[in-house]
Amino acid sequence: MSQRNDKPLVGIIMGSDSDLKVMKDAAEVLEEFGVKSEMIVASAHRTPDRAARYAQTAEERGIEVLIAGAGMAAHLPGVIAAFTVLPVIGVPLQSGALRGWDSLLSIAQMPPGVPVATVAVDGAKNAGLLAVQILGGKHPHLREKFKAYKEKMVRQVEKKDANLGEPRPVF
Amino acid sequence: MSQRNDKPLVGIIMGSDSDLKVMKDAAEVLEEFGVKSEMIVASAHRTPDRAARYAQTAEERGIEVLIAGAGMAAHLPGVIAAFTVLPVIGVPLQSGALRGWDSLLSIAQMPPGVPVATVAVDGAKNAGLLAVQILGGKHPHLREKFKAYKEKMVRQVEKKDANLGEPRPVF
Amino acid sequence: MSQRNDKPLVGIIMGSDSDLKVMKDAAEVLEEFGVKSEMIVASAHRTPDRAARYAQTAEERGIEVLIAGAGMAAHLPGVIAAFTVLPVIGVPLQSGALRGWDSLLSIAQMPPGVPVATVAVDGAKNAGLLAVQILGGKHPHLREKFKAYKEKMVRQVEKKDANLGEPRPVF
Amino acid sequence: MSQRNDKPLVGIIMGSDSDLKVMKDAAEVLEEFGVKSEMIVASAHRTPDRAARYAQTAEERGIEVLIAGAGMAAHLPGVIAAFTVLPVIGVPLQSGALRGWDSLLSIAQMPPGVPVATVAVDGAKNAGLLAVQILGGKHPHLREKFKAYKEKMVRQVEKKDANLGEPRPVF
Amino acid sequence: MSQRNDKPLVGIIMGSDSDLKVMKDAAEVLEEFGVKSEMIVASAHRTPDRAARYAQTAEERGIEVLIAGAGMAAHLPGVIAAFTVLPVIGVPLQSGALRGWDSLLSIAQMPPGVPVATVAVDGAKNAGLLAVQILGGKHPHLREKFKAYKEKMVRQVEKKDANLGEPRPVF
Amino acid sequence: MSQRNDKPLVGIIMGSDSDLKVMKDAAEVLEEFGVKSEMIVASAHRTPDRAARYAQTAEERGIEVLIAGAGMAAHLPGVIAAFTVLPVIGVPLQSGALRGWDSLLSIAQMPPGVPVATVAVDGAKNAGLLAVQILGGKHPHLREKFKAYKEKMVRQVEKKDANLGEPRPVF
Amino acid sequence: MSQRNDKPLVGIIMGSDSDLKVMKDAAEVLEEFGVKSEMIVASAHRTPDRAARYAQTAEERGIEVLIAGAGMAAHLPGVIAAFTVLPVIGVPLQSGALRGWDSLLSIAQMPPGVPVATVAVDGAKNAGLLAVQILGGKHPHLREKFKAYKEKMVRQVEKKDANLGEPRPVF
Amino acid sequence: MSQRNDKPLVGIIMGSDSDLKVMKDAAEVLEEFGVKSEMIVASAHRTPDRAARYAQTAEERGIEVLIAGAGMAAHLPGVIAAFTVLPVIGVPLQSGALRGWDSLLSIAQMPPGVPVATVAVDGAKNAGLLAVQILGGKHPHLREKFKAYKEKMVRQVEKKDANLGEPRPVF
Repeated sequence: MSQRNDKPLVGIIMGSDSDLKVMKDAAEVLEEFGVKSEMIVASAHRTPDRAARYAQTAEERGIEVLIAGAGMAAHLPGVIAAFTVLPVIGVPLQSGALRGWDSLLSIAQMPPGVPVATVAVDGAKNAGLLAVQILGGKHPHLREKFKAYKEKMVRQVEKKDANLGEPRPVF
Repeated sequence: MSQRNDKPLVGIIMGSDSDLKVMKDAAEVLEEFGVKSEMIVASAHRTPDRAARYAQTAEERGIEVLIAGAGMAAHLPGVIAAFTVLPVIGVPLQSGALRGWDSLLSIAQMPPGVPVATVAVDGAKNAGLLAVQILGGKHPHLREKFKAYKEKMVRQVEKKDANLGEPRPVF
Repeated sequence: MSQRNDKPLVGIIMGSDSDLKVMKDAAEVLEEFGVKSEMIVASAHRTPDRAARYAQTAEERGIEVLIAGAGMAAHLPGVIAAFTVLPVIGVPLQSGALRGWDSLLSIAQMPPGVPVATVAVDGAKNAGLLAVQILGGKHPHLREKFKAYKEKMVRQVEKKDANLGEPRPVF
Repeated sequence: MSQRNDKPLVGIIMGSDSDLKVMKDAAEVLEEFGVKSEMIVASAHRTPDRAARYAQTAEERGIEVLIAGAGMAAHLPGVIAAFTVLPVIGVPLQSGALRGWDSLLSIAQMPPGVPVATVAVDGAKNAGLLAVQILGGKHPHLREKFKAYKEKMVRQVEKKDANLGEPRPVF
Repeated sequence: MSQRNDKPLVGIIMGSDSDLKVMKDAAEVLEEFGVKSEMIVASAHRTPDRAARYAQTAEERGIEVLIAGAGMAAHLPGVIAAFTVLPVIGVPLQSGALRGWDSLLSIAQMPPGVPVATVAVDGAKNAGLLAVQILGGKHPHLREKFKAYKEKMVRQVEKKDANLGEPRPVF
Repeated sequence: MSQRNDKPLVGIIMGSDSDLKVMKDAAEVLEEFGVKSEMIVASAHRTPDRAARYAQTAEERGIEVLIAGAGMAAHLPGVIAAFTVLPVIGVPLQSGALRGWDSLLSIAQMPPGVPVATVAVDGAKNAGLLAVQILGGKHPHLREKFKAYKEKMVRQVEKKDANLGEPRPVF
Repeated sequence: MSQRNDKPLVGIIMGSDSDLKVMKDAAEVLEEFGVKSEMIVASAHRTPDRAARYAQTAEERGIEVLIAGAGMAAHLPGVIAAFTVLPVIGVPLQSGALRGWDSLLSIAQMPPGVPVATVAVDGAKNAGLLAVQILGGKHPHLREKFKAYKEKMVRQVEKKDANLGEPRPVF
Repeated sequence: MSQRNDKPLVGIIMGSDSDLKVMKDAAEVLEEFGVKSEMIVASAHRTPDRAARYAQTAEERGIEVLIAGAGMAAHLPGVIAAFTVLPVIGVPLQSGALRGWDSLLSIAQMPPGVPVATVAVDGAKNAGLLAVQILGGKHPHLREKFKAYKEKMVRQVEKKDANLGEPRPVF
């Protein structure tokens, strides 16, 4: 079981290092679940061969889920998905004048045949959580961890509620 | 291996039987891959308990991936995701005046903590394919089948190209 | 009549304490009308049981109107409405990249059967005023107070007009 | 109690008789609950005095909730709300080139001080249901009826589910 | 001719004194053309009678063009237009979360029968210029002034071009 | 007075004869007011010289108001406005995939210095009415006619109300 | 000169043969200018290698301009541009629920480094004309032909004007 | 070959000197390729004759590609295209309340007959690169330079990847 920390199960691809400030949320939440990930910079447009090669070799290198983040006309997740049979999670990034409307549509509206699992604009944390849920099929301990994670969220909400200060309604 | 046809691995939930005409695409593509699915009608708003109960019991009943389709203020996928640790795929449906803009945002823009893997508006076929990709982690034969599916798509495109009729460019 | 200050008539639910800075406008305007309210934190996605339980018990606990605020894929008002016959007012909050377009559609576009009374993005003050108007049916003194409130608004506008400085047109 | 059928509790206002095909849904659902309503045609722009007079006299005439439907730059609900302290429900209608985006924003985005309870584009049925919920504060039998209505919706969903035809999952 | 400075020909109405920072552009450009204007604060929703009365009496008081600015669900220009036969210019203001999309649609999409001459979001300066063009029909000297204004704009553009610094292309 | 029928006061310009089916509404309403208009086809992009020449000569030919209708990237009203000091009314036409969103923004969002009085998408009738209101400054009989037109609209609304069939509320 | 008809100068790529009904407009207008083109079906997602290979070999095969049309999350033009230094014209196609908003943004909003020359939604004819203008740099006779084309458009507009039927204004 | 530096091949037009901060990106990237450009200020609306004259004389003055940037109702690229047979690249600028949605649609949605090659909102750099690609037809050395530019982008991406810091995946 410890070997699950030895090599990355999730590959996180971003078009530029400027995307790191959002995309690191995915890596951090994966680490919280003890899932090792690797991050690379590869652009669908400036380095299409590099992006394709990464996608094509991901499976044989042991990667089980791919997360790709991109802004504007965000083709990276779709291009990655074109070259692999692994599930690909797309993170639309908010950059440029249109604040993520462009990247959301460029990622979510994939035509039939090549799906991308789209999360919210700048939703890298949820991309990481979705990767954990996907990995849970083969790695059942992650399902247990996710149940604990859900319970922790309940307690966090209750704590926030308590902090509202007045006597709390009982229901 | 044959037992994988015996009980459903994928649960497909829709808010109304009127959604069946789109959502059946998911079931059909799953069947094409030999993945058994079950379909139920459950509404996040009209039958919240039923939706919650389905989500809560899905894992123990052997379901590994959930697909939920809904239109307008499409809360069903998010509500399902609230009650399970299984990966949930959301299909925004085009219904009502706003043609799916409402359901796309209601599904894709999930806040941190509870992800939904969103596909295109009316993208039930891609929801089915994404489910296959997710199942491929635990069921490796599905990865092989998906590779064959990708090859079939290549041949289909080449056939469409041939049908354009004039002598074809060689490249 | 003084007993109307003793226990809350309006329940204000928000998904996170970070929503308090907007949602407190509802509580403040209710207080201005002498209507007691209670505020709780409950998330449709992270604490669905808590949200449902609050909604289910609200009526028996004497709550007459519910106000729910949420951002992004804002399911909280709809989920609350699913579990009660009380009128539910939804406040779309401006959060994330899409500035409230997502929460507005996620709340306003409720499908037939389960209505949510939607106000403007970040319109918590109007949510409070709408609650007063709704309460006015059973508590007629609130209608009188609302008439006074409307008259006060007239005087405020006239005062703003006077402050424009030049001699004022007479009409 | 039977007197509640004698005079209308809900006034339904629309800008043109062409809106009747949608707005009648509100009247019908009210009738289903035994709530008498009246319908009038009044335009915020073409007959502003008529609209104002209707709104100003509604309360004294026994009306307890107002429903106003309008399309395009849909000012009718807001104009009605300006002249009354009764709760006003706005129904954005889908008309013209922009399919209801204009009417939705023109109704939902009311500035502070004068709320309108907005429902979905063409959501006249939900407007009627919301009126019933609002009336339930003063007329408790309507709350009981609404509970029955909710139970009926559950059975309808279950029936739709049964109609899907294959053996139904048990959960 | 000097009497045209004695009493206002243009009435500028805004819903709140906070709109003054934009709406003063209209007054300033009118002053540049020697057209006297008056400004008032009147809200379509909070002071509907005041707004109506201003509109109804504007013509008899010598006003020839009305300019109304409002934000969010911007009903003021339409309400003004409902009560007068004078041309009404609407200025959508950028306020609230939706940045003027709501006010633009609420003003531009007026239904048949009651037109509003809409300018750009925050386009108060153009509202003033449009008022001058409208007044030019009855006051021909304004047409001559507008021709001079257009020539001045040409020179301003040429000056900006000269300031680009490098030798200028000759064409 | 009869001379007002002798030569056109309003010029209606459209980019293609296919726009006639909408733009004729402007001519018809003008005719209803006894205002003579002329219609021409001129394209801002395909016949820029023709469009400019028409705009430049309109004033000397006696035209007092210009109405220009265009679809998609609708530059015609702005180009016309660039070449005249007459007031220009722009009619965004619904054509192409984006249903008038493009033409609305291309006309309404004119930058400072060159205003266009924008009406609703396909709002040619209101363009005609706005032209009448503008002409009313110099031709006061049109103001009287417009008052009568407003009264006629009131009666039309009342008639539509009567046609709703049930006993009408008295208010 | 005749040799310019012997081999194609323009490559037209589309993701599916269902796009042919729009994309053939590009081929037809090119033929009208005597520019030979070739059409192929290649999908960025289903046949990424084929699309890349076509783009990579286009220049050496004598192609001088590429036109790519795609709908929904329209990645084809960007993917083509990633693999060539030839100018690439992108045609957003109107398909699916969002009517071309998705394809327009997916093509126009290309990030820095890899431009795509975007035309209107379904604007295949303009794509062909733009290709002719681009080719005009190296093939000056096409500039002369384009001038004639522009003159023909002038005459077409004048003819449409004449067909309006009434005596035509002289200006 | 050195003469290609002697006179400008690309004309860059902007409506105001305030657009220079974005539009200079086009000039800079052209300079990086050794392509001389000239910049002028000309407004489609305030100086239509100047804009037309520049466009009409550009070809005879040796200009081979035109780049025009404008914000809001951005007519400049279309107006330039109306007066020339040279390829025109349009740069939608982000200015005003609507952040470039207006300029994007005003430029991209050109009707058939007069194309504009649209790039992303504020995409002046890509406009320069597209100009280089267009010029590459007649000036083949630019194609070679563009290949080198593409290779440089690959190395930049690889360098950004290296800077991510952890041991880099080998693939």
